[in-house]
Amino acid sequence: MRAGIYHAPGNVGVGTVPDPTIVEPGDAIVRVRRATICGSDLWSYRGVTKWEDGWRTGHEFIGVVEAVGAAVRALKPGDEVVAPFSYCDNTCEFCRAGVQTSCVHAGYWGGSHDDGGQGEFVRVPMAEGTLVQVPEQLRGDPAHLPALALITDVVPTGHHAAVRAGVRPGVTAVVIGDGAVGLCAVLGARRLGADRVISVGHHAGRLRIARDFGADEVVDSHDEEAVVAQIREMTGGGAPCVLEAVGTQPSVNLAVAVARPGGTVGYVGVPHTVGAIDLKSLFGNNITLAGGVAPARAYIPELLDELATGGREATAVLDMVIPLDRLGEGFAAMDQRTAIKVLVEVSD
Amino acid sequence: MRAGIYHAPGNVGVGTVPDPTIVEPGDAIVRVRRATICGSDLWSYRGVTKWEDGWRTGHEFIGVVEAVGAAVRALKPGDEVVAPFSYCDNTCEFCRAGVQTSCVHAGYWGGSHDDGGQGEFVRVPMAEGTLVQVPEQLRGDPAHLPALALITDVVPTGHHAAVRAGVRPGVTAVVIGDGAVGLCAVLGARRLGADRVISVGHHAGRLRIARDFGADEVVDSHDEEAVVAQIREMTGGGAPCVLEAVGTQPSVNLAVAVARPGGTVGYVGVPHTVGAIDLKSLFGNNITLAGGVAPARAYIPELLDELATGGREATAVLDMVIPLDRLGEGFAAMDQRTAIKVLVEVSD
Repeated sequence: MRAGIYHAPGNVGVGTVPDPTIVEPGDAIVRVRRATICGSDLWSYRGVTKWEDGWRTGHEFIGVVEAVGAAVRALKPGDEVVAPFSYCDNTCEFCRAGVQTSCVHAGYWGGSHDDGGQGEFVRVPMAEGTLVQVPEQLRGDPAHLPALALITDVVPTGHHAAVRAGVRPGVTAVVIGDGAVGLCAVLGARRLGADRVISVGHHAGRLRIARDFGADEVVDSHDEEAVVAQIREMTGGGAPCVLEAVGTQPSVNLAVAVARPGGTVGYVGVPHTVGAIDLKSLFGNNITLAGGVAPARAYIPELLDELATGGREATAVLDMVIPLDRLGEGFAAMDQRTAIKVLVEVSD
Repeated sequence: MRAGIYHAPGNVGVGTVPDPTIVEPGDAIVRVRRATICGSDLWSYRGVTKWEDGWRTGHEFIGVVEAVGAAVRALKPGDEVVAPFSYCDNTCEFCRAGVQTSCVHAGYWGGSHDDGGQGEFVRVPMAEGTLVQVPEQLRGDPAHLPALALITDVVPTGHHAAVRAGVRPGVTAVVIGDGAVGLCAVLGARRLGADRVISVGHHAGRLRIARDFGADEVVDSHDEEAVVAQIREMTGGGAPCVLEAVGTQPSVNLAVAVARPGGTVGYVGVPHTVGAIDLKSLFGNNITLAGGVAPARAYIPELLDELATGGREATAVLDMVIPLDRLGEGFAAMDQRTAIKVLVEVSD
């Protein structure tokens, strides 16, 4: 089959790799229909995390079950499914507690030995635990595929930021970051009932989407010094809920600086380049730092239900659509920020 | 009046300073009966925080109202009162939210311009907001004074660690630190219903008090590397609630390392020497970092009620009693760890 392959920093291509087969009785093989490129795919692309030539790319995909192992009962060939960006048994202590990313059998797609999501087929371990069926209302019509593809990662990750920041009806929420996750965090803050949402970012076009997603106000963060004072002024001293959706040192510092005494920073940006958090910056005002990698599997059923019953699509973040063979162009566009997020059409 | 005065690192004495007077109509003057020396007093004593010769020491005191300003209605001369370690109006947004340490009018005793708690009298700003009356059952008998003195700071701070770590019935709680706050955190974990409490510290004698306060197991933390593995083994992979009661880099690192996926570290040790927290150590397992300076004023009424109705005293942490004029000896003893916590008898 054809699949995305990492070669070197700045060099991702598509090559031919072995077709996956059922290995364990709990496995399924999924034919991928749509994949997406994630901001976190750029960490290896940029050489920040060390990858090796030949590793497989992508962790965001939806598709159709092609085959199942002998132990799989709840899925059958032909089922339309959404995969979270990591796999899990969905039965262990941590899965039951809603932290499926810490499943005792957890693993991430792609890399050195698992199929990546950016390819024609994926072997899915613990398929009954990992995969979620597409609701009946959303099956069949390919028009739903872009919205479904976003529920693998960025929509639940934005939602997680809102959950972990403690967003609740009546609060003011500040969202740091106008990438795909930040924009989905605006949706998350709205979903949980925030009274006022302030979106903070660098890009006028993305901030327009933030407004469209429900941000009441937007703040340009180019001037890192001024923006703290500006947000503190807008919020009368900081916000009780701050959603950090970037994962760089300046963005985390900004998030802490605009949190209100007793408030919470929900952080979901992968902190590859965050040196450290100064605990003293949190101590005096009892700022809570809550978050981490989103347990997408925990949220996908409710997010699919919402979508199936007329909920808002996040598809405005998908501003580039390519076939699988042009995967490298998609990486380059996201790296250069000419695309917010790239949809990869793998099969019909 | 006589009061504790900082001179230089390693040099705290008692000198004569002006008697306080009512300055604002909301003030009260309190005659101090008992003060205590706090672990955080040692930061200036050790030269970690920069103090100047002549600054006033102490922030933990109980006493009797001597005089009140014209606007004070709820207090009168003769009332026995407990002071939290910071003052507050107890009416602003943050006070109402239970973060009195972030009161818009908050201030800390002692230092360059406020009376310290280690002196014969204290001018108390916003006395109605700041002071809490001693319950009737505990008035009169001086035998209650040591237990009352501990409710100014270490008892609520240990309680705060348990609250912020999310201790609840059924959980396992690990308490890092066997100083006075750590020992009070054991009490806090028990108070909130922890099923199992593991106390971690350096000192056999203090760990015996931890057992007496309700720790089921104690762990010697001299070997910093081994202790992580030991606690992770004891807890089957970490505890859902970790109470950090030291505030040094090794102790915070240990707290994070023994937190269970999805768990919470409630930190209350003043982080003067904590360089930073590696966000990556929290991210993958969704560890929450919650805590900060304890809003003692929020907890004092319930802690006094508990004490008044037969609740456990924390007085075992007071292993040295001195008159005010020997204050310097108390500082030296705590600095050298020959005393856990020092009670200063100021007046009858």
